[in-house]
Amino acid sequence: MSLQELNNVPGVTAQPDSATQQFVFNHTMLRVKDIQKSLDFYTRVLGFSLLEKRDFPEAEFSLYFLALVDKALIPADDAARTVWMKSIPGILELTHNHGTENDADFAYHNGNTDPRGFGHICIAVPDIVAACERFEALGVDFQKRLTDGRMKSLAFIKDPDAYWVEIIQPTPL
Amino acid sequence: MSLQELNNVPGVTAQPDSATQQFVFNHTMLRVKDIQKSLDFYTRVLGFSLLEKRDFPEAEFSLYFLALVDKALIPADDAARTVWMKSIPGILELTHNHGTENDADFAYHNGNTDPRGFGHICIAVPDIVAACERFEALGVDFQKRLTDGRMKSLAFIKDPDAYWVEIIQPTPL
Repeated sequence: MSLQELNNVPGVTAQPDSATQQFVFNHTMLRVKDIQKSLDFYTRVLGFSLLEKRDFPEAEFSLYFLALVDKALIPADDAARTVWMKSIPGILELTHNHGTENDADFAYHNGNTDPRGFGHICIAVPDIVAACERFEALGVDFQKRLTDGRMKSLAFIKDPDAYWVEIIQPTPL
Repeated sequence: MSLQELNNVPGVTAQPDSATQQFVFNHTMLRVKDIQKSLDFYTRVLGFSLLEKRDFPEAEFSLYFLALVDKALIPADDAARTVWMKSIPGILELTHNHGTENDADFAYHNGNTDPRGFGHICIAVPDIVAACERFEALGVDFQKRLTDGRMKSLAFIKDPDAYWVEIIQPTPL
């Protein structure tokens, strides 16, 4: 579909208000049961860096902000890092309510069974075949392997809370 | 918390595997009931551009990919636009299952009541006071106004499916 046709899809405002010009889709927030497992998954398996941690001891929760960025670009100064982190797209916020990791029956809802809503996050990788082989070698859970189903160009893995993480390759396979 | 302390948080892999070096957190997918209302909200109120629409008539759903980008940067060529769109962070994917908009009783789950999981997406704006005044003038629903609660530096608005959209300002107010 051409750009002109996209601009004419019902509901679309082709020329957004100039007031929105510097708006940035900064982050997506997911609640996680066991923050240690989630940090391991997002940093070791997917390569995210932890940019900030905020603790709210009275309310018994902590927030973790992560991104897939070149480590060399992360400001060392804490205040500068906060401003930078709030200015860029592609941040993942994980909310950990303290103690959920110790409750065997506790589980978050990944949005893909009733009641549905949120579907997934997606990571683009330069070589999807190599990435999926590495995920297999690391023992990552798959929701859909490259070879499953009709869409052979994408995969879905699952994070420790069973949130779906789509894996795509920007260029054709 | 310093970068060194962040790298020592339990679970964190301080030096990610080089295999993840070019990974990009590309998108977040939300299912929406009435795509026309959602496109209006995300393009007119928040300034997103519609970059791609994919229809699956047999399975009766369509996918819409949007981003907050400078219109001048969007490739006009369809194939080039697809590769580009899959290569950058900050894409929002909306899934529309055809016909849900005609079912008065149909509603998606925003993740913030039981069963909980997904929490919100977040838009960073240069001037949060001006942005919130504009949202009020446009009749946008608020989950939390700047003046509500203890956190006076952030707000939450609601999209047409009642998904929470946090509004922040990178610099201190």
